[in-house]
This record gives sequence, C-alpha cells and structure tokens, in this order.
Amino acid sequence: MHEGNEASSDRTTIRRMPDRGFYDLATIHSILDEGLLAHVGMTTEQGPVVIPMLYGRDEENLFLHGSPASRLLREGGGVELCVTVSLIDGLVIARSLFHHSMNYRSVVVMGEASPIEDLDARSRALDLISDHVIPGRVAGTRPHHEKEVRGTLVLSMSLTEASAKVRTGPPVDDEEDHELDTWAGVLPLGIGVGTPIPDPQLREGITPPAHILQWRR
Amino acid sequence: MHEGNEASSDRTTIRRMPDRGFYDLATIHSILDEGLLAHVGMTTEQGPVVIPMLYGRDEENLFLHGSPASRLLREGGGVELCVTVSLIDGLVIARSLFHHSMNYRSVVVMGEASPIEDLDARSRALDLISDHVIPGRVAGTRPHHEKEVRGTLVLSMSLTEASAKVRTGPPVDDEEDHELDTWAGVLPLGIGVGTPIPDPQLREGITPPAHILQWRR
Repeated sequence: MHEGNEASSDRTTIRRMPDRGFYDLATIHSILDEGLLAHVGMTTEQGPVVIPMLYGRDEENLFLHGSPASRLLREGGGVELCVTVSLIDGLVIARSLFHHSMNYRSVVVMGEASPIEDLDARSRALDLISDHVIPGRVAGTRPHHEKEVRGTLVLSMSLTEASAKVRTGPPVDDEEDHELDTWAGVLPLGIGVGTPIPDPQLREGITPPAHILQWRR
Repeated sequence: MHEGNEASSDRTTIRRMPDRGFYDLATIHSILDEGLLAHVGMTTEQGPVVIPMLYGRDEENLFLHGSPASRLLREGGGVELCVTVSLIDGLVIARSLFHHSMNYRSVVVMGEASPIEDLDARSRALDLISDHVIPGRVAGTRPHHEKEVRGTLVLSMSLTEASAKVRTGPPVDDEEDHELDTWAGVLPLGIGVGTPIPDPQLREGITPPAHILQWRR
C-alpha cells in the first residue's frame, strides 16, 4: 500500500499485491473516465450475476444506466452492487508461461445503489453517462423528452468505497530464465477506432461532427 | 429467441431483448475466443464481488486462472460463479441520447467452479489459458516446471449453463427524429495493438516471434 493512501473500508482493501492498490479519488476518476463498460455484480436468488452496463460519474457518485439494471431492483429500493471497470493496457510476455501477466488498471466500487427518483437529477445523470461515453454528445443532440427521462432507470452509487489496482512495466522473470532465447516484453493494447459508418437512413449532407471524428480513449 | 436455440436453464435465459439471445456452443465459443478478460462474480460475506481474470476453454469447460481466484475458495471446495465476457464492437450513435447504444457480444456462464487437482489436467488447462491469450505462446516457451503447476490455482467450470447476447447494426431512432440534422450511425471499436516493447533485460539479438508480431483480436 502507498503511504497516506488507505482504503475507506475493509472490503475494498487490496490484499493480493497491495503495492498495486490505490485509493485516491484522482486515480479512481481517471480510470473510470477512460473505461466504457462496467461489469456490475449482484447477488440474486439464483446466485451471483454479472451484467455489462454503461456508466458515468460526478465527483462523488457513479451512475449506472438503464434497463439492464431493472432485474437488480426486483425487490424494490436499493441494491448491493460491486461495480468493476477494467482497462487492458498490454500483454506482459515473460520467458515462462508462469510469469505472463497483463498491464491493467481496474477500479472496484462497492456499496448500495439506488434509483434516482428526481427527474432533473436523473436527466443530469443521464447526460453525465452520455458525455462519459461520447464527450460532447449531449451538446450535439436534442434535449431529452420528459417521457424518455421518466422511462429510464438510473442508479446512483457513492464512490466512497472504491479501490483501484494498477500493473505497469515489463515482465518479472525468474533469474535463471534470462539465459533462454525467449523473447520477452510488453505488447501494448488499447481501444482501436474505425471509420464512422453512417446510419443507412441518414439524410444526405449530414457529416459526422468533431466529437465523433475525434473520439478516442 | 431463435428457433431451436434454447437456454439450458432458467437463470441463463435472456429475458430482456430475447431476440439478442443465443445459446449454441459455436456462438459462445467464438465470443469467448475473441475476449481477453472475464469478469468473475461471486457472493461473499461482504456482498457481491467482481474480479477481472484471464481464462481459456476446451470444448465443454471454461478455465479460470490463478491466484486472483484464491479468495473465491476460502470456504474450500467449489464456488458458485457468474463469468461474463464482453466485447465492444461499436458505439451506436442515435439522433436522441435515449436511443444511443452499443454494438456488443457478451457471454454469461453460470455454475459451480472447482479447482483442478490433477497436475497433468491442470498443466493442460494452463496451456489452454496461455494459448487463448496469445495463440502460439505455449510452443514458444519452455515447459512448465512442476512447482509452477503445483503453485497455481486453476478453476474449471462447465459451459453447460451459458448464454450469449449480441447487438449489431445501426441505431433505431424514433421516426420523428429522422427530421433532425443530427448525425447518426456506428463508430466501430476494437482492440488496437501497439509495437512490442522489449524487456529492458532482453539479451541482444532476440527478436519478437511471429505469434507476438501478428497478435490480433
């Protein structure tokens, strides 16, 4: 663990490889901002369930989007969740299979999530989710219709119980394996972006805006 | 749901947007093969937990790698898991924020996972995990030392209870929104691959092999 960098709860304390653990909001925010999908875990009568969901955040809260969450709330009210966001930065290629690894950054948020009832707050959270996925998209589209906001489930969850875990750098091989003729290093990975494909129903003369053409992660 | 395409259990039946559901092993295998990380959910005394893990498969089983799983097994024996693998194929950009979506392929596997005790079977599962992440890597590295196999936890889990969910194609907007001047379409995403970075300790004259240079997903 890093000095002055402590978990806010026992269950978010990184126990395995604690040197890879971070608990400061700046690190947590930066990983959340770069991610696209959260994997959201919950406990159901039929066992654990993990669902991919879109998300956004403000300074202190994580927002989870929409209908995929409906099954989470069958019992009404809040629901205990574990939300994990993982970025793969590279394949760590060692001289032995045993020491292969990944360079990654991940965030785990635990706690109770609750539906946002207030329509203005819900609309704002929806905008934060949209602008998280595609920065600039909110300004580039029409305002929400009220019925759209009414018809959408948005969950809010505090970032209080959150931890980050980060691995960087080259492989760590056994000393004796450095004699081998085996290549070792890192293969960097990221999100590759293709050329925008217009909707077949797009009217002529409408070109992709900068927030689409310049989308990167 | 697709004709002749039925879930093997109630809990893996796709209820939301059932037309996006697939239950055939060929679809499930192809998504698992393209994925890199699984998000593994379990129920603990402190609530649900979701951990990113590397994995591999054979025809009928999923294998989960190593020490991240150790906390899953504190109570000894098998553990009930939900394993989710998600591929993001594109951002679906609609004329309203409400109809924004993602093109994705995901697999959810539910059931009990158990440690592989037999060392030969465990070694084989480790090879399947390595060759899943980097096809060709097993042939390109030294054999496992027995102590490495002994010291590694590998979980096996049947693919019997598995389902896939797939979204493809353009956005689906409200009819009236087609009048807007808003660009709509799909921004294709995939895994971007950088140039291999040699280990600073790599001996001179060792160049990256084809299975690294040609790695793609």
